[in-house]
Parts: sequence; C-alpha cells; structure tokens
Amino acid sequence: MSDRYDSVVIGCGPAGLSAALNLHIRNKAFILLGTKQCSHRLAKAERIDNYLGLPEISGKELMDRYLHHVSSRGIELREERVTAVYPGDGAFAVVTGKGQYTARSLIVATGVHIEKVLPGENEFLGRGVSYCATCDGPLFRGKRVALIDYTGGAAYDEVLFLASVADTLYYLLPEGKTASATAAVKLPLPANVTQLRRSSLSIKGADTVTSLVADEQEFALDGVFILRETQKAEILVPGLATDDKAVTVDGQMATNIPGVFAAGDCTGKPYQLARAVGQGAVAALSAVGYLDNPRN
Amino acid sequence: MSDRYDSVVIGCGPAGLSAALNLHIRNKAFILLGTKQCSHRLAKAERIDNYLGLPEISGKELMDRYLHHVSSRGIELREERVTAVYPGDGAFAVVTGKGQYTARSLIVATGVHIEKVLPGENEFLGRGVSYCATCDGPLFRGKRVALIDYTGGAAYDEVLFLASVADTLYYLLPEGKTASATAAVKLPLPANVTQLRRSSLSIKGADTVTSLVADEQEFALDGVFILRETQKAEILVPGLATDDKAVTVDGQMATNIPGVFAAGDCTGKPYQLARAVGQGAVAALSAVGYLDNPRN
Repeated sequence: MSDRYDSVVIGCGPAGLSAALNLHIRNKAFILLGTKQCSHRLAKAERIDNYLGLPEISGKELMDRYLHHVSSRGIELREERVTAVYPGDGAFAVVTGKGQYTARSLIVATGVHIEKVLPGENEFLGRGVSYCATCDGPLFRGKRVALIDYTGGAAYDEVLFLASVADTLYYLLPEGKTASATAAVKLPLPANVTQLRRSSLSIKGADTVTSLVADEQEFALDGVFILRETQKAEILVPGLATDDKAVTVDGQMATNIPGVFAAGDCTGKPYQLARAVGQGAVAALSAVGYLDNPRN
Repeated sequence: MSDRYDSVVIGCGPAGLSAALNLHIRNKAFILLGTKQCSHRLAKAERIDNYLGLPEISGKELMDRYLHHVSSRGIELREERVTAVYPGDGAFAVVTGKGQYTARSLIVATGVHIEKVLPGENEFLGRGVSYCATCDGPLFRGKRVALIDYTGGAAYDEVLFLASVADTLYYLLPEGKTASATAAVKLPLPANVTQLRRSSLSIKGADTVTSLVADEQEFALDGVFILRETQKAEILVPGLATDDKAVTVDGQMATNIPGVFAAGDCTGKPYQLARAVGQGAVAALSAVGYLDNPRN
C-alpha cells in the first residue's frame, strides 16, 4: 500500500495515456489512474481528421486505439477517482476512493470541466461546500448533507461513506447523465439516503451553507459535496498555480511545484488531441529528468 | 506569382504536416514548402513506439502515413527550399529556389540541424559566408566562390546561378551524403564549376573570407555559400528571437514577430514526434486566430 512509485499519472485521456506510454518506455515505476471512459469528449466525437497519421477516424475508435497501445505494453489502467493529493517529504500521497499511492512525481492530466459551476459553489467553498467526501465527510457527523454526483455513479463509495457519517444524505444525480445515472440508481442505498434527480441546482447560505435549491424545491442542510468526473487540478493538488483556470506550465510542462508536471486540456486551450498527446510525452520526459536528477 | 496567401508553412516534418492539416481543415489558403525527404531523422528511425495510437511502427512507415494523410486531403507539398524571408507591410515574402510567395502569416517548422557548424562559419558570416545564393550571389560577380552543398543535390539551381555570376565556383559535396550526392554528380555543370568531394572543411579569412581549406587542400576565394537541407529558422526569418538556439515561443506557439508561429524541433527539446505534431496543430490554430482577427 505504501510502495513508493516514481510517478502517478492522474487522468487517462490522450495526455495521460501518452505520459504513461513514455514513462513505461523510460522504465519508470508508475501508476495510471483514471475513470472508465477516460475521455467523454473524445469518445463522443463523431469524426476526427486532425490527428496526423490516423485520418477520418471516430472518437471511439481513436480512443480504443490509444487504450490498446497502452494496454498492449502491459500498462495497467486503474479505475480509481483521485479525491486528494497531499504533498509530503519529497513525495506526494495520492488518495483515491480505493487506496493511497506515494510517488516522487505527479503528472496531472485531468482534462477540463464541461459542467458549469453551480450558483453558490465558489462562494461557499470551504464553508459547507466540499469536493472531497473522504477529507471533509467527518466534519458533518450527524448532520444533513447533499452529494451532487456528476460522475454518473462512480461516487457510490462516497455515498456509502457519507451515509455512514451524516444523519441525512440527499444523493442528487443531475439530469443529463441518463445512461450511467440509471445504472447508479440500481445500486442499493442505505435508509438515510434520499436519491433525487434534478436539473437545476443552486446552493444558498449565510456564513455557511444552509440549503440546496433543486428545481424550486429547497432542502435545508449543512453541507454540499460536489463530485465531478475530473476534479479541477488546482483543487486536487494544493498550491498548484493556475492562470485563467488553466494549470500554469512552462515549455517543459513543469508546474510551479517541483515534481509536478501537467499536460493536456487542464493546461488550457486549444483543446486538441495532438496537443494533449504531445504534452503528455513532454511531461513524462520532464518527470524522467526530474526523477533522474540526484538532487531531487 | 504574387498571390497573397493566408500562410506559408516552412518545413514538412511532423510539425509542418500537422500545421498544414489544421490550416486545411480551417479553410485557409496556404503553401506547404519542404524538401523531398521531409524528415531525414524520422525516415531513418528503425522503430517508433511512443506516438500514441500507432504502436511499433518504422520511421519510414510513420512518415508515409503522415504524408498520405496530408496528400489525401488534397494538400500539395511543394519541394522548394526556402532561401530567404522578407517581412513587408503586414505580410511576408518567402523566397524559394523556384519563386516567391506572399503570405500574411508564417509557420516555421524547420527542424534541427544535424550538421555541425564549420570552423570559421560563424566568424565570417556576412563577411564572405552566406546562406543565400539568390540574395548574396550578385555581390560576388566575377569573383571566386565555393558552394558547400549539404542538401544532397537540391542546390543545383543555386550552382547554376552562382556559376553564371562568379568567375570560378568550387562546388563541394561533403562526404557522408553518398546516395543523393551521387545523383547530383550526374547533373551537367558549367565549365567554370569544379566539383569536389571533401570530408573536412574549414573557412579562413582576415577581415573577410580569403580561403577554404578542404581536406588539407587550400582554395583561395572570396566567398563561401553554405546550403543546408533545413536552414536555421533565425537566419531565414530576420529578427526571430531564439533562446539557446531554439526559436522562442509561448504556449500558443507565437514567436516574437506578430504573424510568425513556430512548431517542432526548431523550438527546442525534447525532440519528440508527438510534441512536434501537437505543436504544429497549435501553431496552425494560433495562425488562424491571428488571420481572423480584423486588427491584423
């Protein structure tokens, strides 16, 4: 459980896969973490014609080719959602729903958010709004909380955990994720969990959160957990510098934190496959350089 | 001849081809210029396994796939070596061995040099040493000059032009480019041209060039033209900023000159296919943004 890896790659979109491939070629010990779909946006693209060398290909087929390339090299993709990263003494602890990994370097390839920020989300962040059930759940012992699940059911562990801690849990599956949300609905839920589907959500409060308004129905509560498929990189990694919501990187994909590199859409526009793949390769090689430097 | 294009892409390695593909998709009128081989280094790579989606492929096959992708879209590669670029009034004049193109933007994807700088080359640059026969040839009317051809015969036009201007021309084919140099040897040469093969070359002079030493034989002369497959970007484009020999770019692949973008190995290390392809795409989209901006 506490093996020390060379690197953890967070995200299995084109940038994360390219980084993993290059770390593998350079014989580094690493963990590749991601969600099942890896890249919703790529998987849904009808036709892609600007990834040089693979003309007129569907997003699904291209993603399959990417995944096949990586898996054919023996690289394992672990379907674990990262909930928090803690910097430590020359290493980072990466906490997922299933465990914890320690690594000397990180490659952040978390993509971009397609969901909008909820009204009240930024205002009450840290004052009742949290992105990490594992971290902040215990603060709401015996209280009423909501969990807004944009992951399409991947938050089931967090639902069980929060239900075990809180008095009442409203489990909200926002409309628009129909297929995966339906699967989530079928999972057994503890008695203190009320599952709801709502399309319009907003958070209200004074000093701290006091209620959640969902399709004009108001629920009085103390905390709101928001879980998204890809967590914002700067929330996952404390202290990570951003510029206009994109992770700040130099030409070698180094961030402001030594040992942390970033690649792909989380580093900003243009959101392009080829850019993500290229940056993933560069981030991996920069991580290799960092790891091989005896001063680090 | 003086049509005004949206862009000229200089170089047909992975970065240049990716840029061309993206300019094409965005319906821009552009010219793609390059040498026949496009990328010597890629073509010679035995096996490449880190271009995500195309596992275990030879450099030759990957290059063929790249070229096929581009040509299948109706993009024409013009085998013309760029000899000079002149900035003008909101446009750039790109001079090749065969003609001239005017464009509002440039994408520089000239790769890196594998040939070493000759002894004396930097010292006498602009004082007898030139990289552009078309530009500087007339300065040597009736004089003795050498043309050192690292292009493997692609400099034949320049040979004829210099022979028509100079009194005496030593045409040097450095050893090590055997196959293509052999082809060059078979072309008919004017009477005032002496063709030589030499491996070791150095340039001597005082205020200006006075001689060329080639394998211990010394030739008294007034000028030395050095033609390489890929000209250094900063020599082609006057005023282009570089840092440690790499073209300075920002995250959007913009250089210090408005309208000039760069991509691939000419922007520095690591020299990676995926990086070049990604940067080519970004440079093209940045050029599109520049072209579509009514202020430019």
